[in-house]
Amino acid sequence: MLELYHAEPVANSVKVLICLKEKGVEFSSHYVNLLLFEQHAPEYLAVNPDGVVPTLVHDGAAITESSVINEYLDDVFPDPPLRPTDPVERARMRIWTKYIDDYFGPAASRIGWHFLLHPIASRLSPEEREQRLSRIPMADRREKWATIAGTSFTAEQLADARRQVLEGVGKLEALLRNHLWTAGATFSLSDIASYCVAPALPRLAPDAVNRDATPRIMDWLDAMNERPAVKAALAMPNKVPETLAALGFPPPAPR
Amino acid sequence: MLELYHAEPVANSVKVLICLKEKGVEFSSHYVNLLLFEQHAPEYLAVNPDGVVPTLVHDGAAITESSVINEYLDDVFPDPPLRPTDPVERARMRIWTKYIDDYFGPAASRIGWHFLLHPIASRLSPEEREQRLSRIPMADRREKWATIAGTSFTAEQLADARRQVLEGVGKLEALLRNHLWTAGATFSLSDIASYCVAPALPRLAPDAVNRDATPRIMDWLDAMNERPAVKAALAMPNKVPETLAALGFPPPAPR
Repeated sequence: MLELYHAEPVANSVKVLICLKEKGVEFSSHYVNLLLFEQHAPEYLAVNPDGVVPTLVHDGAAITESSVINEYLDDVFPDPPLRPTDPVERARMRIWTKYIDDYFGPAASRIGWHFLLHPIASRLSPEEREQRLSRIPMADRREKWATIAGTSFTAEQLADARRQVLEGVGKLEALLRNHLWTAGATFSLSDIASYCVAPALPRLAPDAVNRDATPRIMDWLDAMNERPAVKAALAMPNKVPETLAALGFPPPAPR
Repeated sequence: MLELYHAEPVANSVKVLICLKEKGVEFSSHYVNLLLFEQHAPEYLAVNPDGVVPTLVHDGAAITESSVINEYLDDVFPDPPLRPTDPVERARMRIWTKYIDDYFGPAASRIGWHFLLHPIASRLSPEEREQRLSRIPMADRREKWATIAGTSFTAEQLADARRQVLEGVGKLEALLRNHLWTAGATFSLSDIASYCVAPALPRLAPDAVNRDATPRIMDWLDAMNERPAVKAALAMPNKVPETLAALGFPPPAPR
């Protein structure tokens, strides 16, 4: 039995959803509503003690970390293969995925958290805030949430995040000038990983990401959006608009 | 032809050195002296534009990021295998390696950088500092170096780092209570990755890491230190004492 705990089809959740759809395997979907902090609820912490999405549960074994989950899916459902056969391309796939996990993704998500989550989290009363923070097991993530629920990031931190996003844009465009997909001549897990960040880029940095400045990123995005697995992943439930409405916030900007 | 650019046998350098020694493959060793900032020299940036060690160069292809290098080595030199056959154990290997890369290792290294590198880097003249910083290509790393060469980490940041190290210690002891090695019943790349941090723990946190508090970590460390590959890796050149002496600093504390 294969189960996925995930949020709306963006960021690390869409990464695993695309992989599952590329593999064409059946799974049970469990929606975790991040805007309601369900990832820190005791029921979810029993599944993933780190309190983050996504989590894959396969025959009782919980697999965490989206990049690890996708390698796991390629190990257990090898058809179609989503890792290059050539070991150098495979290493390139992992290097680029790691860069997204460590720098590019977090920088883009700091901007997203600031604009989407800070207005919600900062409305919590001091008691609610303490109570929610005390549920978060990992020190590092607890601090990140304390920042978001408190004063959020400083202008300098946001400027840093923007600069890191632009660095990532430059690297992605350069990669795609060298070969059709991010790791080489074939579509792979690092293209899926890039889709964590890439669809938001033309909106996040319109001056830097467009047909003139980054033609290869735009072509690659088109090719990604044409894939049936990407379309199927994007068609998965997204409760953000209804949750924002229920909380009395305006709808999010279109992606 | 297989070449490794690496520093003394600790941290991410020892991780790849152990893997190469476990595989028993011949390689050319290029020592990069971090205390002389050789990782930011133009000759090295031509090998690895990110300016970090280690870098593996195999038949002209440069592979970076120690965790990726070790998976690459297991891909191209499959004997003896250093990844578990069972996909769940293999995922566990990658989850634990990622935790070390993302949290445990950086937290321990912040403490090491503060005590070892800050005294050296802070002696640079403002011009030398600017000139060296301008060579570092990645924004995130440039900032880390600016911190080290400037005021270093605050007492609060160091306390945070210590707390993260203790969190890692708890997780490692728990893993080793569940199974003999970090990923399961067999030695794997996540044991090698753990050796990035683990040998320093009894010295870094003597109250938390000892025979009484963490018997499994101590037994596992003994087993690691008995491995011929670990001994061979530790016997690789270490220019830290002579470089410190040449720079007029006292020798480092014994590890």
